[in-house]
Amino acid sequence: MISSEHDLLDQVFPLDTTRDDAGALVIGGASCEELAREFGTPLYIYDEATLRAACRGYTRALADAYPNALVLYAGKAYVDPTLLQVAASEGLGMDAVSSGEVRVAQAAGLPLERVVLHGNNKLPREIDLALELGVGRIVVDALEEIEIIDELARRRGQTAQVLLRLTPGVEAHTHDYIRTGAVDSKFGLGLDSGAAEEAVARAMRAPNLDVMGLHAHIGSQIFDTEPYADTVNITLDFAEHMRAAHGLDLRDLSPGGGGGVRYTLDDDPPDPADIVAAITSTVLARKLPHPPRLLIEPGRSIVARAGVALYAVGTVKHIPGVRTYVSVDGGMADNPRPALYQSKYAALLANRTGDGPPETLTLAGRYCESGDVLLRDTVLPPLRRGDLIAVPAAGAYHMSMASTYNMVGRPAVVMVSDGQARLTRRRESDEDLLAVFP
Amino acid sequence: MISSEHDLLDQVFPLDTTRDDAGALVIGGASCEELAREFGTPLYIYDEATLRAACRGYTRALADAYPNALVLYAGKAYVDPTLLQVAASEGLGMDAVSSGEVRVAQAAGLPLERVVLHGNNKLPREIDLALELGVGRIVVDALEEIEIIDELARRRGQTAQVLLRLTPGVEAHTHDYIRTGAVDSKFGLGLDSGAAEEAVARAMRAPNLDVMGLHAHIGSQIFDTEPYADTVNITLDFAEHMRAAHGLDLRDLSPGGGGGVRYTLDDDPPDPADIVAAITSTVLARKLPHPPRLLIEPGRSIVARAGVALYAVGTVKHIPGVRTYVSVDGGMADNPRPALYQSKYAALLANRTGDGPPETLTLAGRYCESGDVLLRDTVLPPLRRGDLIAVPAAGAYHMSMASTYNMVGRPAVVMVSDGQARLTRRRESDEDLLAVFP
Repeated sequence: MISSEHDLLDQVFPLDTTRDDAGALVIGGASCEELAREFGTPLYIYDEATLRAACRGYTRALADAYPNALVLYAGKAYVDPTLLQVAASEGLGMDAVSSGEVRVAQAAGLPLERVVLHGNNKLPREIDLALELGVGRIVVDALEEIEIIDELARRRGQTAQVLLRLTPGVEAHTHDYIRTGAVDSKFGLGLDSGAAEEAVARAMRAPNLDVMGLHAHIGSQIFDTEPYADTVNITLDFAEHMRAAHGLDLRDLSPGGGGGVRYTLDDDPPDPADIVAAITSTVLARKLPHPPRLLIEPGRSIVARAGVALYAVGTVKHIPGVRTYVSVDGGMADNPRPALYQSKYAALLANRTGDGPPETLTLAGRYCESGDVLLRDTVLPPLRRGDLIAVPAAGAYHMSMASTYNMVGRPAVVMVSDGQARLTRRRESDEDLLAVFP
Repeated sequence: MISSEHDLLDQVFPLDTTRDDAGALVIGGASCEELAREFGTPLYIYDEATLRAACRGYTRALADAYPNALVLYAGKAYVDPTLLQVAASEGLGMDAVSSGEVRVAQAAGLPLERVVLHGNNKLPREIDLALELGVGRIVVDALEEIEIIDELARRRGQTAQVLLRLTPGVEAHTHDYIRTGAVDSKFGLGLDSGAAEEAVARAMRAPNLDVMGLHAHIGSQIFDTEPYADTVNITLDFAEHMRAAHGLDLRDLSPGGGGGVRYTLDDDPPDPADIVAAITSTVLARKLPHPPRLLIEPGRSIVARAGVALYAVGTVKHIPGVRTYVSVDGGMADNPRPALYQSKYAALLANRTGDGPPETLTLAGRYCESGDVLLRDTVLPPLRRGDLIAVPAAGAYHMSMASTYNMVGRPAVVMVSDGQARLTRRRESDEDLLAVFP
């Protein structure tokens, strides 16, 4: 066993990932080797128990500290109806950013009043669909959306319940954050520029809008809890000012989320309970007469760890004195994050334990591009064609960003639980890809 | 008119792009405004005449200098059956990198003996399909593929006509190139390591392989012609050595291609005729008794200029003292190149001429990610909701790499010619995206 394997299984792979007697990785009670045989590779495996535990990491902390709250599943991280049903059964709502994501919520049977529609450039037809289906909140992202939403709601004889998205001047990055006076973002309404106040004034006057509250989002993959407290305070200060100036009644407060996750053992993300505590203690410290409902957006931290990418090894190429390339049957099309963000991952041999001293190798994808490399200079046992490789922390921003580059269909997705696997997204065939051509 | 508009229309947009009396851009005789009305946005528009001209830039130069040649359309840049039919009618073959791309060639009616199958990790089933359908050449990319292809051909009672892919130690980048002794690439068989010679020896002995020749590929978006000459010489030197050592009969020589294209006025790519001249003059200078057939892979330079991305403007956000964000209805999901490679693009207002002094703005996409920016700090007339924006040089590595991120369907593609437009790829609907969920 590679020295770090124990830690990877314990901290990066889904909960209770083990090896069976034959040495194959077992996730959610299901052997990776059997999953590969039944569903093929590349395969995305989501562990139901890990997904539920991640939901509960937020919901339980909130139940204790601040019961008037709703945790939102981030559709954009990855969503399919089966996963969303699990999240919904844990009491979560969803933040959606398109009509397609709203329709997944509908397909999953998620109560649509628990859905919040975001987007810096929502199409009018998407806003209209949200009104038609009864999506709970539409987030106003720009001044001109006020009139658009109001008019669409008027035509339907409805009142749209909206949040206003602020750019709070807090910007969080993985390990640090900055506060700027002037925020350079395509999202939201600036506080300093006066856009946020103007939006409150205009939205309060719009006959078919009900301004339910304020939203702010400060980034994602956040490793510190201080920015959350800062954001809550800035937003509540603004709300207080808006109550005095325009009579704003803050019923919803949505201070983002975007909790960090552990992709490799080098990452040290905060516990969800700490994120929740940072937010709730800051709100409670204000001793508001009518504390708002909290909408929390944990982002990738709900699904990242639950997901594992499983690949089969194909070509093994030793270039003497240079590097060993091991090519798998997936790559940048199902996981664009290494190419897009230079993201680092870990990996384990999944069908057996190693039978030789570990070696340094580069795990390349199958796509026709030199940059299609999943892990550079990783240490694994000697690999051979047909071996399976499991890449953990693959649950967010892989399949949701996946392409069919090189005209290769996207992988299948399964959810495992108690040793059973069910298909939640089928593998795309060549025929599927050809179906868009008239 | 913005000062650079004339140059952009002349050098970056498809041939004969103009404006009509109402000020709308006209591509292939079709008004962008009418195309948007008929097919919606985002829309990818390919101009047939520009595609044909790009094909002829290679085929005519070869017809004069070296008629025993085949130009290969790069499926991975973007392919659909309609475009491929045009290329095929110009005498082109295709380089394919998956079973999906082979099936597009089949759907287009391209004679499959004109298809070359590449890939650093071709799946056995893909090799088998290539043999079944009579794909012209399979490129051996690694030693272990020799036995795999030989065995699959044996089972079919066929002889596979293969090329061997060398890593020639020439690596070209946009404006320069390097020669290295040890090549660090997931592709090909090293010359210095002895892998290439071993491959020749083993492939020549394989009973069901016919080694037709050698392939080398040195990169793409190449702006210089010297690397081509270098690659040809290195490959022919090796071929001569292999003839003496192993009796190799070099019938095909495939020295890559990957010609550069002009994305903005700052780019200055070589003329295809110069690339062809660099290759053919180098081959002819060797005065071989039996000159090989040349297989040329022009890559993106066949389709990049023919394609234009057409977007509609949505939210316009002025952040005083910071930046103006103009959000369009597409973005990083249909064009991931700015996010992946920090690629620069140009853009023009497409539905009208400007009615105010040009201003500096940032063209953002609709996707929920701060990094979803198509053009940063570009200069355009004042824009308003509903305006159309045309981004030229969009024909390669946009739609082929496009994802359905945020559960947004991929754009439609049309081909225009003589004022007529035909749909070559239909827009994906929300229902299409939901179809993969059981």
